[in-house]
Amino acid sequence: MIPTAALTSREECVARDAADPLRGFRDRFKIPERVIYLDGNSLGPIPQAAASLLNRTIEQEWGQDLIRSWNSAGWFDMPVRLGDRVGALLGAAPGQTVVCDTTSINLYKAIHAAIGLRPDRDVVIAEDESFPTDLYIVEGAMKSAGRPMKRRLIGTDGPSIEALLDRNIAVAVLSHVNYRTGALLDMAAITKQLHDAGALVVWDLCHSIGVVEIAFDLDAVDFAVGCTYKYLNGGPGSPAFISVAKAHQAAAQHPLSGWWGHAAPFAFDRDFRPDAGIKRFLCGTQPIISLRGVEAALDAMEGVEVAALRQKSLALTELFMARVSALLPDLDIVTPRQASLRGSQVGISFDKGYAVVQAMIERGVIGDFRAPDLMRFGFAPLYVRFADVWDAAELLAECINAEVWRDPRFNRQLEVT
Amino acid sequence: MIPTAALTSREECVARDAADPLRGFRDRFKIPERVIYLDGNSLGPIPQAAASLLNRTIEQEWGQDLIRSWNSAGWFDMPVRLGDRVGALLGAAPGQTVVCDTTSINLYKAIHAAIGLRPDRDVVIAEDESFPTDLYIVEGAMKSAGRPMKRRLIGTDGPSIEALLDRNIAVAVLSHVNYRTGALLDMAAITKQLHDAGALVVWDLCHSIGVVEIAFDLDAVDFAVGCTYKYLNGGPGSPAFISVAKAHQAAAQHPLSGWWGHAAPFAFDRDFRPDAGIKRFLCGTQPIISLRGVEAALDAMEGVEVAALRQKSLALTELFMARVSALLPDLDIVTPRQASLRGSQVGISFDKGYAVVQAMIERGVIGDFRAPDLMRFGFAPLYVRFADVWDAAELLAECINAEVWRDPRFNRQLEVT
Repeated sequence: MIPTAALTSREECVARDAADPLRGFRDRFKIPERVIYLDGNSLGPIPQAAASLLNRTIEQEWGQDLIRSWNSAGWFDMPVRLGDRVGALLGAAPGQTVVCDTTSINLYKAIHAAIGLRPDRDVVIAEDESFPTDLYIVEGAMKSAGRPMKRRLIGTDGPSIEALLDRNIAVAVLSHVNYRTGALLDMAAITKQLHDAGALVVWDLCHSIGVVEIAFDLDAVDFAVGCTYKYLNGGPGSPAFISVAKAHQAAAQHPLSGWWGHAAPFAFDRDFRPDAGIKRFLCGTQPIISLRGVEAALDAMEGVEVAALRQKSLALTELFMARVSALLPDLDIVTPRQASLRGSQVGISFDKGYAVVQAMIERGVIGDFRAPDLMRFGFAPLYVRFADVWDAAELLAECINAEVWRDPRFNRQLEVT
Repeated sequence: MIPTAALTSREECVARDAADPLRGFRDRFKIPERVIYLDGNSLGPIPQAAASLLNRTIEQEWGQDLIRSWNSAGWFDMPVRLGDRVGALLGAAPGQTVVCDTTSINLYKAIHAAIGLRPDRDVVIAEDESFPTDLYIVEGAMKSAGRPMKRRLIGTDGPSIEALLDRNIAVAVLSHVNYRTGALLDMAAITKQLHDAGALVVWDLCHSIGVVEIAFDLDAVDFAVGCTYKYLNGGPGSPAFISVAKAHQAAAQHPLSGWWGHAAPFAFDRDFRPDAGIKRFLCGTQPIISLRGVEAALDAMEGVEVAALRQKSLALTELFMARVSALLPDLDIVTPRQASLRGSQVGISFDKGYAVVQAMIERGVIGDFRAPDLMRFGFAPLYVRFADVWDAAELLAECINAEVWRDPRFNRQLEVT
């Protein structure tokens, strides 16, 4: 295979794509024509087979089989069944992962449980630059912990994690990949550091699941949560996941004690008795049609190795950064150049970034923008090609060189999640 | 119109159906052929227009428009937009209802907020016969309230609500319609009783929304929650709703402080600052495809008056109970015969009930069974006909007279939600 560093023309990129061992996976997704989709870090595209699977759920299971589908179509077991499949992507043995609710709610369960497992400690570490919901949910979990807790922020404006590690730390809530910069933390090393200090960890995998190798069991991770609609392509707002290490399950408690988390949900007891295992992290009835989107997405990834995804992902981001640097040497790429320090997206800080992203979208290259000045481009190795990367970098340079921000069309600010 | 009491033949039922002012609504739903569906109190059938609306969301909005649909297809505003439409069905003015998460999670938010609004009181009232998740979530909300709380159960095995009402009661969590017996509580009177004692109320509307007239604003209800997949027909596990009286919103707090509940979700502040209004009861990103099911369901109800639904619902249940009593005088109907005391379902206690329900399902009349001995039949006035009721009662009598429980086929116990 042609090494990424040697890709110095579009033709070489096309040749590299032809030799890509993952090239067949692109056909499992529908990418709109004349679109280069670099926003899979926000919402993955639809798998080819999703519409028919969802349609069967809608028309046959709901429409024809009705209530019987809770058993006959396996609706009731979907959180556990899909959970084990997601678990395989993060290195977690079966019985430690369920797909349910939202990332925010799963974070709440995990942080609450972790605080409960460290009753003599009163500090929760979070990151000042994490996706905000992680910070907000830390506040909520602390307020409802039943004892006074403190939030300590590490990161760009704050101290390092090492500076805080002492006997007061109950748990750290950390993003594996930063949603803005794409910076990747060393899960193995940080988890060990925390454990050596007697603390627990909750990893937010929203921006790493499906593109970065994760060793939940090997690294002895305590808790992990993440969404399924970014690199896992489960569809808009598809239910999230939560993983809890087997060793913690029997003692891990959270107050969202709904009937799906009961040891015997159909015994209709009056008192809550949590399931002995991972199902205690379920709460209420799940949105089945959206869950089927997760199933279609996992089907589309069937047969792929995360190691192969990671390898291609790094090659794609490396090529993009190399091309952008070559074409626009002054541009401020905020994503780490060192492969071991980045996820699968590239962030570029540029004060006219909003207009540039809008102009690129108009010409078919979809990235996104985060206030105040960050352009984000995600490179999903399942369907993004090297030639796409080449073209996207060319277009970025064209838009900046043409000063597209002078065109008022591109400056109407819109909120995009 | 022929009064229900006068319906003494199948022909009269057919005539009554022909004169039914709601008869046109049945065509808005797909009921499988040769099926009489009396389980809409568990999972409503699919609206005719749902498949195409969902398909547009899947193929066009997700498949083609991708991330842009958060704005262009109005995904982000769906919880509020659909919330106002659900609010109209429960007599709540706009700005007091959102559709999101699950009933269990919305119960948690509501109970937590209510406890916080009554800081000097330490008792939460619940019902010993409520759907179990309500009891379990009361436990969870109490545990995370930050101060010692007690749960007191009213109901069949316990005292009446009057016996408990004193200055210690913070909030009562009550089912408007009991999920087993179909008994309906007097929302106006009980809410007033609680308010007179200085307490708040959380009404669980799962088994009344869409079939019983509810006066959230007129009765000065504090909080209400409910699901959208029973009489609202939103699809399996479609997101639930929560209503919070305007007067409480500014002070009502809950710990599921996710980014969708923030005053400025796209400002990406580090600290949580709740939205001033109902949006503070949102948490994380919602399952959009399942939410579209709720939209299709509300579209299918467009133009109907809840008062008309209630009137027909009472006539259907009255006819069913009258016919069953006539055919099987010894059968133990546990649902109140007085119209003002029942919802839209009829429960029959019968020790061979499991086998009877299975035999009826095999012959096209779908009801359900709740351990240990309860047969449940739900009468959704949008699509159930008087002739269906006649036929269902006939079949019930046939099955019991034929002693179908002697057939081992009908005694394989299955879990059904």
